[in-house]
Amino acid sequence: MAYDPTTHRPLTFHDAVPGFLAGRDTPRDYLERCLATIEAREPEVQAWMALNIEGARAAADAATARYRAGQAIGPVDGMPIGIKDILQTHDMPTSLGIAGNEGARARQDSASVWALREAGAVILGKTVTTELGGAHPSKSRNPFDVRRTAGGSSSGSGAAVGAGMVPAALGTQVVGSIIRPAAFSANVAIKPSFGALHRGERQGLSQSCLGVHAGAVEDMWHVAAEIAARAGGDPGHPGLGGTLAPPAPRRPGRLIVLESEGWAATEAPTREAFEALLEQLADDGVVLLRRADDRLIDAFERSIAESVTMSMGLVAFENRWGQANLLRLFPDSLSDTTLAQMKHATAMTVSDYRDLLARRAEARLRQATLAPLADGIITLSCTGPAPLLEEIVHRPTGRTGNTAFNAWTSLLGCPAVTLPLLGVAGMPVGVQVVGQPGQDEAVVGMARWLGEVARPVNR
Amino acid sequence: MAYDPTTHRPLTFHDAVPGFLAGRDTPRDYLERCLATIEAREPEVQAWMALNIEGARAAADAATARYRAGQAIGPVDGMPIGIKDILQTHDMPTSLGIAGNEGARARQDSASVWALREAGAVILGKTVTTELGGAHPSKSRNPFDVRRTAGGSSSGSGAAVGAGMVPAALGTQVVGSIIRPAAFSANVAIKPSFGALHRGERQGLSQSCLGVHAGAVEDMWHVAAEIAARAGGDPGHPGLGGTLAPPAPRRPGRLIVLESEGWAATEAPTREAFEALLEQLADDGVVLLRRADDRLIDAFERSIAESVTMSMGLVAFENRWGQANLLRLFPDSLSDTTLAQMKHATAMTVSDYRDLLARRAEARLRQATLAPLADGIITLSCTGPAPLLEEIVHRPTGRTGNTAFNAWTSLLGCPAVTLPLLGVAGMPVGVQVVGQPGQDEAVVGMARWLGEVARPVNR
Repeated sequence: MAYDPTTHRPLTFHDAVPGFLAGRDTPRDYLERCLATIEAREPEVQAWMALNIEGARAAADAATARYRAGQAIGPVDGMPIGIKDILQTHDMPTSLGIAGNEGARARQDSASVWALREAGAVILGKTVTTELGGAHPSKSRNPFDVRRTAGGSSSGSGAAVGAGMVPAALGTQVVGSIIRPAAFSANVAIKPSFGALHRGERQGLSQSCLGVHAGAVEDMWHVAAEIAARAGGDPGHPGLGGTLAPPAPRRPGRLIVLESEGWAATEAPTREAFEALLEQLADDGVVLLRRADDRLIDAFERSIAESVTMSMGLVAFENRWGQANLLRLFPDSLSDTTLAQMKHATAMTVSDYRDLLARRAEARLRQATLAPLADGIITLSCTGPAPLLEEIVHRPTGRTGNTAFNAWTSLLGCPAVTLPLLGVAGMPVGVQVVGQPGQDEAVVGMARWLGEVARPVNR
Repeated sequence: MAYDPTTHRPLTFHDAVPGFLAGRDTPRDYLERCLATIEAREPEVQAWMALNIEGARAAADAATARYRAGQAIGPVDGMPIGIKDILQTHDMPTSLGIAGNEGARARQDSASVWALREAGAVILGKTVTTELGGAHPSKSRNPFDVRRTAGGSSSGSGAAVGAGMVPAALGTQVVGSIIRPAAFSANVAIKPSFGALHRGERQGLSQSCLGVHAGAVEDMWHVAAEIAARAGGDPGHPGLGGTLAPPAPRRPGRLIVLESEGWAATEAPTREAFEALLEQLADDGVVLLRRADDRLIDAFERSIAESVTMSMGLVAFENRWGQANLLRLFPDSLSDTTLAQMKHATAMTVSDYRDLLARRAEARLRQATLAPLADGIITLSCTGPAPLLEEIVHRPTGRTGNTAFNAWTSLLGCPAVTLPLLGVAGMPVGVQVVGQPGQDEAVVGMARWLGEVARPVNR
């Protein structure tokens, strides 16, 4: 089924709640519709590592009873949610995407899972991840063309939401693992400011984030806000700001159109679709600034020109001890991709790492200089439609797609929200709004405005 | 055996290495002497949760062979080390101090353990910790008077080093858990700058640190430096600076004598012993500054006047989701102390937490204003000798001693090194040197100078 952004209707939850309140619908019925979609599409999409159908039905029934009694907990009460299989759940295994580790069972819920259960959400299952959340591809397929990648590492979360199996799913990103799969599968998604959403047991990387995939900005925000209200941000961070109600649509006066490493790798149809969207904004009176317009923008572009390499180096070094332990546990089953990353890390010194930290800090200072220039940044979320698996399966890198539009937001620790505004050759392509660190609410507000006023472009 | 700081000889390792190199002694023989001490004293001191004697002997034999072949890895090659039972080891259980969790086995080595094994150290065993590293007392006893507490939460590490069972042990501190037990058991110890030593899987608290107990400053530094060289600091941090060789002794020109919350809780004999030590420094020409001498010092004192309460609040909130999970696993065995902390945390809001973060940030700004005034801070490491167990067992708080001299260095994330320079009523009392965040080398240099020039005071 070819994707057409002008007609595509994602699965949403916030607009089902009035039905729950009026007694026309129930969370249990909503869940059963999700299960029917999973039954129909899972054989080809392969978004799930594990499902807890019995537990989910019990949780949905409890939510149904709360709505009936007029005691719904909040906006995610009864919402079926998928959890990336890198986050721990006490009632399902956590494989981390490692072959041979499928039955490994943690004894706890990750902070976000714990918070969402408290908020009444229905924790339906674990969504497929690439090995250790890295670049080695997973079994998931793109729901709009199963010959294509679902992206990574939050491949199952992106695909499950894209296929309408669940209205929301949790992902994590350290280079491009939330925004890229979301952009490939027509999700909206947020990679928040560093530290804004509690990462639970996964505190071991200096630029990883917990984020949310959803069919609608409202649902995305509700999930994020419930985590922030209950688990807070990471230790030492104030946590996502704002109320449970989504930020109001916010019209930007000026936006920076960023090239990053991604633009050079973007093919003509995707460029044209994006430029057509930008034309709408310019016609609407939004001032668009590019690197040629201001030396500060150009200097910022230069500071992030190697953000993929920098991010991969930071991640490799920070993963050293964990991966050394994993190699002892799984001496024969780790992929060549992961082994190559470990080899890269072993060759790095503490000085190499400190140099990357310094360059990252410099890029962050450069981003700060943009604050007076514009309300935010607009750019593509991926270099084009999800690649065909047969074209990427033998590549040494980029086997889940190109992260060139994503690594720099991870490096900067700044918020990014992707919207499925483009269709290229029958496949989704995302557009992202990015802001200064801590300005998550403003970015979501601008994304909401963009989603409401922009006419999706189909090429 | 009454403690006398003027005659006490701790177990050290760095001065055994020449014997290994000359063939007069071996790491295996050194280990056997440690095991003999453990056999003699463990029944009453109770410093260990688990020992891996077979594995330690194999590691010591391997180190012996390396010394024989002239291929020693570095200064901790062959050093027997105890690991606080809150850090994971792949070859021994990790109980976290929870009753009923004694057999729980992690599948990995914590980053520091992984680094120390690489450096040739002999990972001898797991040292007793209080429940979850909190305030509920452990079974360990003070090696200088077993009617007294060994402190907490690194009680076993402090006691094992104090009893001469091992020359070094790892501890962790989030309020006062390294410096206080070290001060009670006549160790030297470092609680480094926040992030300076990789905490491995324990990244979930915004002011916790990994640190080292030892019998000598040299051994303490070697252990810390080997961890920093191999595992680095926490993700995103540059890690402990300096070389493998310990910083040279550094004479301070001016020192701030800090009261903190501790001074008011300190009894006369301990005060007098500390003042006698300060007199030596003043006679030696070191300028001593107190809160009455400078309004900036007074303002700093005020900013940390509630550091125990602030730290306990921060820790409680950050532990919420982990403890909620533990309560599901151990519904009947958690102590009243931990349950009270959880109750405290449940009553806190995200706003309460953010307020504590803001107050902590203010105290850190205040500390920065002291940098031009003096080379560092000198103060007591504890309010007096380790309390008698019979006097504290029924207290609701402070059951492992008072943290009033420690919580503020945790809050500030700044380096602190304790030295066993005082004896009061036949028990050890520590003195600590504290510096600005990141100035670990300078603080160790000053501590080394102090340890060399000061005449220990016995009262």
